[in-house]
Amino acid sequence: MTRATAMLDTYPADLGDVDRAALARAIEECFTCSQACTACADACLSEPTVADLVTCVRGDLDCADICDTTGRVLSRHTGYDANLTRAVLEACATACESCGDECQRHAERHEHCRVCAEACRRCEQACRELLVALG
Amino acid sequence: MTRATAMLDTYPADLGDVDRAALARAIEECFTCSQACTACADACLSEPTVADLVTCVRGDLDCADICDTTGRVLSRHTGYDANLTRAVLEACATACESCGDECQRHAERHEHCRVCAEACRRCEQACRELLVALG
Amino acid sequence: MTRATAMLDTYPADLGDVDRAALARAIEECFTCSQACTACADACLSEPTVADLVTCVRGDLDCADICDTTGRVLSRHTGYDANLTRAVLEACATACESCGDECQRHAERHEHCRVCAEACRRCEQACRELLVALG
Amino acid sequence: MTRATAMLDTYPADLGDVDRAALARAIEECFTCSQACTACADACLSEPTVADLVTCVRGDLDCADICDTTGRVLSRHTGYDANLTRAVLEACATACESCGDECQRHAERHEHCRVCAEACRRCEQACRELLVALG
Repeated sequence: MTRATAMLDTYPADLGDVDRAALARAIEECFTCSQACTACADACLSEPTVADLVTCVRGDLDCADICDTTGRVLSRHTGYDANLTRAVLEACATACESCGDECQRHAERHEHCRVCAEACRRCEQACRELLVALG
Repeated sequence: MTRATAMLDTYPADLGDVDRAALARAIEECFTCSQACTACADACLSEPTVADLVTCVRGDLDCADICDTTGRVLSRHTGYDANLTRAVLEACATACESCGDECQRHAERHEHCRVCAEACRRCEQACRELLVALG
Repeated sequence: MTRATAMLDTYPADLGDVDRAALARAIEECFTCSQACTACADACLSEPTVADLVTCVRGDLDCADICDTTGRVLSRHTGYDANLTRAVLEACATACESCGDECQRHAERHEHCRVCAEACRRCEQACRELLVALG
Repeated sequence: MTRATAMLDTYPADLGDVDRAALARAIEECFTCSQACTACADACLSEPTVADLVTCVRGDLDCADICDTTGRVLSRHTGYDANLTRAVLEACATACESCGDECQRHAERHEHCRVCAEACRRCEQACRELLVALG
């Protein structure tokens, strides 16, 4: 059991009919992707070809911030606001798709971009599945 | 001249035909609103009636995180991604509207909610005006 | 293998003689603790006895922010700054100890405080062990 | 009157004998410096000589995160924890000094580094003055 699931199970009030597995997975992937993007941005900075990677760094930084905020919003359940949750999930999926595409372009040359692109894909998918589950 | 404007004026590459005044204002309001929401959440915690304010605290925390991330995304111009900028601005305007509405309900009793609601309104407006300016 | 370890292994430059296991563990625990504290703060807000938990909420919010920032700083290796790393780790260990102590006081009554206190203890320990490893 | 001062004045409980002017100034400078560092990191990425600026980018990113977290911690007053406040202020002053030094090295060639170095100096000073005021 992941720590996000453990915390979800301790929430003292009614969580409604939310898909707990989808919610826990989205929370986990958001924090994992935020860390991967932060590390990938830094790894790009240490590449001799950093000048070719500035769009990747910028995408990483945006994606790290958005995933972090999304993971926080999804970790809160008091006074649930469906409109806000959806808007944040949409922004996060957009960021992950964009960052994943850019990292994928460098995946053959840079292992950090390959691993980060995977994290972005998984987070994008988790956000989109939670959007579907929320109805 | 604000600090956000000062930094905008130092950007070494082409900013395109962005409305600089609208951009600078959105950046400023995002950071101001993030601070106001952080302080309002804490002020709510110190009210004897905190049990009546938990939805307000939660909205403040979400809004603080989203405004902070939006202010960061808007402070970056390298490899500009219009889709991502729009999704983040939409999420921010949604958060500010929701938090501003909730704070407004407590504005007569709690001065921190009144000041915070104003910050939310200004930030929501700045985000919506930038969305229009971006076309 | 954790994702933080995977990203660490992709760093393209020399990491020096850092203890990679201690570094990866501190990164993981920082992000895990940040999520646990965010969730615990929200769970406290949903308790009927929230008025007795406001110090816990405040500690959770500080600890979540500090752990998040520490996890980010530790995920970067370019231009390593030993003084800064140590100061951030000291602040993070202080935050985790303080938040863990407060959560522990409520651990028997509130399962979220018990789980969160554990996350704080593990993160504090990981930060202190990394401080020792850094010399 | 700044927004941080406005929010400080609305805090509903006793703030103790804290130096309100020093506290408000530190909060303001933290958020201003966080924005400046975020913008400077991005401006560095758009310089043709980005390969010479990677240590500056990394310092900017750390400083942005630490200032943001410090501004948040200082915006909270419920359950005040002097040890934690001091540890965070020490880390923030260290980050601002380090980032300000690195930016200063590029200040003659890059206006964004010059403006960012100023923001770092002001924030470092505000943090150190608050540390003195806290006793």
